Amino acid sequence: MDIAAVNALPYEDFVDILGNVVEKCPIITAAVWSGRPFLSLAALEAAISEFIDALPESGKEGILRCHPDLAGRDLQSGSLTRESHEEQAGSGMGALNSGEASLMARLNQEYKERFGFPFVICARMHDKENILRQLFARCQNERAVERARGIEEVKKICHLRLQSLVLTDNRL
Amino acid sequence: MDIAAVNALPYEDFVDILGNVVEKCPIITAAVWSGRPFLSLAALEAAISEFIDALPESGKEGILRCHPDLAGRDLQSGSLTRESHEEQAGSGMGALNSGEASLMARLNQEYKERFGFPFVICARMHDKENILRQLFARCQNERAVERARGIEEVKKICHLRLQSLVLTDNRL
Repeated sequence: MDIAAVNALPYEDFVDILGNVVEKCPIITAAVWSGRPFLSLAALEAAISEFIDALPESGKEGILRCHPDLAGRDLQSGSLTRESHEEQAGSGMGALNSGEASLMARLNQEYKERFGFPFVICARMHDKENILRQLFARCQNERAVERARGIEEVKKICHLRLQSLVLTDNRL
Repeated sequence: MDIAAVNALPYEDFVDILGNVVEKCPIITAAVWSGRPFLSLAALEAAISEFIDALPESGKEGILRCHPDLAGRDLQSGSLTRESHEEQAGSGMGALNSGEASLMARLNQEYKERFGFPFVICARMHDKENILRQLFARCQNERAVERARGIEEVKKICHLRLQSLVLTDNRL
C-alpha cells in the first residue's frame, strides 16, 4: 500500500494494521493518527519517533518494559506477538543450545536486575552470537545510557516493522 | 494484596497483573513502575493519572482510540479484553434488543466520524438506557470537550479496575 492508502485508513484499521510497530504500544500508533496526512512512510516513522522522544523518561522505560525477553518465557510459552516471534526465530533465539540458553537467561536476568527494564535489541539485524556478545557488553553500561540505547533499538525495530507492513501488506 | 505487595512486584508481574487498568495501554502501567514505592493504592492511581495528564493531546486521543466501541465489533467477535467484556456485559451491552443495537451502532459511528475517537464511558457506573442517553448527548459536544470527557471516563474505569485487581487479586 502507498502512503495515500495509509492516510485514508480510519483509526481502527490504522491501529489494527500498524498498532504493534512499537511492541505492545498501540497507543503510540493511535496517537500519531492525529497527525495525518503523512507525506511519506518516513514522515509517519518520524512522527512515531517524535512521540517517543517527547515522553518522560519513565514513559521510555515503560516502552522497554513492554518488550519480551529474548529467548525468554514468552518465546517458550508461545505467547510472543507475531512480529516478535518472527524476529526472535529469524535470529536463532528459538534454536539455542543448552549452554547458550542458560547464558542468555542468566544475562537477561542480570540486565533486568541492574536496570529495571529488559535488554532490547533489533534482533533482525543480528545473529545469536552477536546478540549474546552485545547483551554481555551492555550489562556494563550506565542506566541512562542503556535506556537511550534501548529506545534506539525500539526505533530500528519499528522501522523494519513499518517497512514490512506497509510495503508488503495486502489487506488494502 | 496490600500496597507493600504491589511495591514488591518485579516489573513483569506488575505489568502482567495491572497492565490493562488503562485499556490496551500497558506502557502506562509499565511507566509508573519507575515511581515505586507507592504509599497507597490512591498514590498509584494518582501516578497513572499524572502520566496521562502529561501526555500531549494526541497521546490522550491515542488512549481513547485503544478503547473498543460499546456493543461493537469486538463484543460481537468475542475479542474484548477480559476487563472490557465484564464491564460491557454488566451494563447490558450484550443484551440489547434490535432497536437499541441499531441505535447504538448508528450513534457510535456518528460519534467516531465527528471526533476521530470512540465514545468512552465507565460502563460499570451506568445501565444501557443511561449509556444511550449519554452517547446521544455527547455527540453534540465540541471535540476538545469530548477528549477531556473521554479521559475522565478512562480514569473512572482505571479506578474501578485497580480496586478490583488489587483488593481481590489472589495471585499474591
